[in-house]
Amino acid sequence: MPAPADVDAPLGIFDSGVGGLTVMRGIMSRLPGESILYLGDTARVPYGTKSEETVIRYALGCARVLVGRGIKLLVVACNTASAFAVDALREELGIPVLGVIEPGAHRAVQTSRSGCIGVIGTAGTIRSGRYQAAIQSLAARSRVVSKPCPLFVPLAEEGWTHGAVPRAVAHEYLDELLAQRIDTLVLGCTHYPLLSDVIAEAAGPGVALVDSAEATADAVAGALAAMGGARKPPAPEQYQFLVTDDPAGFGRIGRRFLGRDLGSIEWVDVA
Amino acid sequence: MPAPADVDAPLGIFDSGVGGLTVMRGIMSRLPGESILYLGDTARVPYGTKSEETVIRYALGCARVLVGRGIKLLVVACNTASAFAVDALREELGIPVLGVIEPGAHRAVQTSRSGCIGVIGTAGTIRSGRYQAAIQSLAARSRVVSKPCPLFVPLAEEGWTHGAVPRAVAHEYLDELLAQRIDTLVLGCTHYPLLSDVIAEAAGPGVALVDSAEATADAVAGALAAMGGARKPPAPEQYQFLVTDDPAGFGRIGRRFLGRDLGSIEWVDVA
Repeated sequence: MPAPADVDAPLGIFDSGVGGLTVMRGIMSRLPGESILYLGDTARVPYGTKSEETVIRYALGCARVLVGRGIKLLVVACNTASAFAVDALREELGIPVLGVIEPGAHRAVQTSRSGCIGVIGTAGTIRSGRYQAAIQSLAARSRVVSKPCPLFVPLAEEGWTHGAVPRAVAHEYLDELLAQRIDTLVLGCTHYPLLSDVIAEAAGPGVALVDSAEATADAVAGALAAMGGARKPPAPEQYQFLVTDDPAGFGRIGRRFLGRDLGSIEWVDVA
Repeated sequence: MPAPADVDAPLGIFDSGVGGLTVMRGIMSRLPGESILYLGDTARVPYGTKSEETVIRYALGCARVLVGRGIKLLVVACNTASAFAVDALREELGIPVLGVIEPGAHRAVQTSRSGCIGVIGTAGTIRSGRYQAAIQSLAARSRVVSKPCPLFVPLAEEGWTHGAVPRAVAHEYLDELLAQRIDTLVLGCTHYPLLSDVIAEAAGPGVALVDSAEATADAVAGALAAMGGARKPPAPEQYQFLVTDDPAGFGRIGRRFLGRDLGSIEWVDVA
């Protein structure tokens, strides 16, 4: 990978909405000193229920906005967009592109002792089979069982992350996977880490949870190091936020995902 | 209202997705003989979590497609689009436009004896205050209490309409409204009729449910009669479907909402 023209340029992150802020949080913590430009496609969220063609079209639109603002590397924080659009983005953009699926799959293979790995995600992510393929290409003998869990996204956005309702939903989704005796469970959607307490409780102590957000931060650090593109402090990093729908609503919900105030948020139109 | 140029022209219905098929179902049953052209904006669903500006923009885009295909009257089946966009649509389109809110409000006022009416809907619909205003303009002494219930939409789309999870969600949302001693509850979102069993159970026998879909079918019949625009059988009616994302997925889920197979579904691009 060639070094970026401007190592001071921000990392770009995009997601269908607020969920990718959990990935941003991981990158902020792993790579202090790097500036980040985040785009949440809140006018068209969610991606997880939509078709491959539509997700690719939306992902290209978002990426073009970020590239137009001079990012040095693109992180596709949305699992569904990672599943469907990373190849199309790499082909078009001319800058390094990292999705969340390969890092998550890698971490899952490192974590599992039995080789029996569960993957949960949106309908689109699971239908794509990309986690399953990535895990199997790293560990051919592993057995992957997967399950779409669409209700976890609205639960996390509603803030219902503890209590009877999310507990009942988690059991409804996970009991079938647990019957397959998995020892590792990949949280294959950026919203799911907010529900990790109830998911861990439903999964029981014998199952390790893998958060793709953390694994992705390591991959970004590795890619920056490899391309000689890491930023040199002491100039302070900057965090900027773009959204395609109402900035105020994004700021309110986003705070829960990022773990801190977002500051000013700019509206952009994405074709 | 002037009679339409072509009484054989279809009625147009649009919704953010499949939910409006419950309204279409009501109109098919109330007005056999009328052809219907339905558009589901599945590439941008849901509207209920998005801002007024974005919903108006999307609604105008959908309506232009339908008007371009020669509909004689437009039904805005989506409660959120009815709340935010009916005025903008009437101003631009030059054909009669009916939303679901006034008919639902009217039915609620007819139904309530105590005058204490509950309204549930998406975050956007409730925030707009349109149901509250419509009910109060019809019955100034009524008391309206309202509550956004965002999880009901993904529950209905997931097909989880009975059992422990929807029951727990219904109690979580409704107990606060019931404490206000409502005797009537407006299902202010096209998805909610699919959950009417658990909603009725949580609400108890003292609360009547009002389905805006049924009330809207009556309003359409009234408007057609008033404008001399009802279709004269015996030429058979036609039902056609347009979507902005994957037609196959729409057909699968839509069947549950319409109560019958949809037949062929056409993809359209909406700006």
